Amino acid sequence: MRDAFHEELDKIGDELVEMTRLVGSAMARASTALIDADLGLAESVIASDEAVDKAKEDLDQRTFDLLARQQPVATDLRLLVTTLRMSADLERMGDLALHIAKVARMRYPQSAVPAEFTATIVEMSQTATRIVAKCGSVIASKDVELALELERDDDVMDDLHRRLYTQLIADERRVPIEVAMDLTLCGRYYERFADHAVSVARRVVYLVTGERADEFLAAHGTP
Amino acid sequence: MRDAFHEELDKIGDELVEMTRLVGSAMARASTALIDADLGLAESVIASDEAVDKAKEDLDQRTFDLLARQQPVATDLRLLVTTLRMSADLERMGDLALHIAKVARMRYPQSAVPAEFTATIVEMSQTATRIVAKCGSVIASKDVELALELERDDDVMDDLHRRLYTQLIADERRVPIEVAMDLTLCGRYYERFADHAVSVARRVVYLVTGERADEFLAAHGTP
Repeated sequence: MRDAFHEELDKIGDELVEMTRLVGSAMARASTALIDADLGLAESVIASDEAVDKAKEDLDQRTFDLLARQQPVATDLRLLVTTLRMSADLERMGDLALHIAKVARMRYPQSAVPAEFTATIVEMSQTATRIVAKCGSVIASKDVELALELERDDDVMDDLHRRLYTQLIADERRVPIEVAMDLTLCGRYYERFADHAVSVARRVVYLVTGERADEFLAAHGTP
Repeated sequence: MRDAFHEELDKIGDELVEMTRLVGSAMARASTALIDADLGLAESVIASDEAVDKAKEDLDQRTFDLLARQQPVATDLRLLVTTLRMSADLERMGDLALHIAKVARMRYPQSAVPAEFTATIVEMSQTATRIVAKCGSVIASKDVELALELERDDDVMDDLHRRLYTQLIADERRVPIEVAMDLTLCGRYYERFADHAVSVARRVVYLVTGERADEFLAAHGTP
C-alpha cells in the first residue's frame, strides 16, 4: 500500500500526463485547422486553452499544498519542485498550439499554408504530436530510454524547421510576405513546442537517474 | 537584525536583481548589434549567455537548498517557489537576447534591419531595456505601483509589434523574404522578452498583495 502522501504524488503524475493529452490534442487540432483552413476547429482550440491553464493552476495549487503540508525533503522535494516546472512547460505548449490556431483563424477562409509547404507543415505537426505523446508516456512510465528518444525526435523537428526556412527563401519570388511571416512564426511555434516537451522528458531523466540527460547520454551512450 | 534565513532570502532577491541587469545588458547589446551590424557585439552577447544560465543555476540551487534546509511555510515557502519561476523567466529573457544577437551575426556584414525599419526596432529595443530595468527595481523595492507600470510598457511593446507587422506587409514589394522573416522573428523576441518581464513583475505584485495583478488593478484602479 502507498501512503497518503505517495498517493498524492501519483495523482500529480496522472495530472501531468493528462496535461500532455490536452496539449497534444490542442496541437493536433490546431495543425489541422491551419492546413485545412478549418475555422471551427481553430475556434475550438482557442476556447479549450482555458482548460489547459486551469489544469496547470489546479496542479500547481495541489503541489504547493503538498509542499506546505508535508514538508518533503530530498527526492520528494525535488519531485514536487520539478512538477512545478513541468506544468509550466506544458502550459506553454498549450499556448503554442493556441498561437497556431490563431494564425489559422486570421487567414480564414484561406489556408495559411500554400500547397508547396503542406508536406513540411504536416511533418512538423506529426513530429510535434508524436513528441508530446511520448512525453506523456515518459511521465507515466519514467522510462529513461524513451525519454532519450525525444532527443532524436527533436533533431527531426530542427531539421524540418531548417527545411521550412530554406523552402521559404528558395521560393522567394512566389511567396507573399504575409505567407512567409505566418510560416516563419508557425515554424518557430512547432520548434518551441518540441523543445518544451524535450525539457519535460529531461526533467524525468534527472529525477530518475540524478543525472542530466546530456550527462546520462555521455556516460551510457546513445540509446 | 535579520535572522540568517531572511538574510539568505535577501541575498536571493539581490541575485534576481543581478539577473535583470545581466539580461538587460544582453538585450541592449544585442539590439545595437542587430541595428549596427556589429559582429563583435553580437559575439559578446552570445558568449555571455552562459553567465546568465550559470546565474540561474546558482540561484535555483541556493533556493532549493533553502527549501530543503529551512522547510519554510506560508509566505516564505511561496516566496521561494516564486523565485524559481522568476529565475526561469529571466533566463528565458537572456535566451531571447541571444536569439537577436544570432540574427545579427547571421546577417553580418549586412544589417538585418533596413533603414525604414530602424526607428521601430530602436523603439522596441528601448522599450525592452526600460521594462527590464523597471523589473529589477520592482524586485528590489517591491513597489506595486511600479510593477503595474510595466503593464502599460507592455502595451507599448504590443503596439510597436503590430506597427512592425503592418510596415512589413505595407512594404510588400520592397522587402526581401529573408528580411521579413528576420524581422518577424525579432519582433516576436522583443514581445516575448517584455512578456516575461511583466510576468516577473506580476509575481512580485502577488507576493506583496496576495492578489493577481489584474485583480489588484480591478480593485484599486489604474495607477
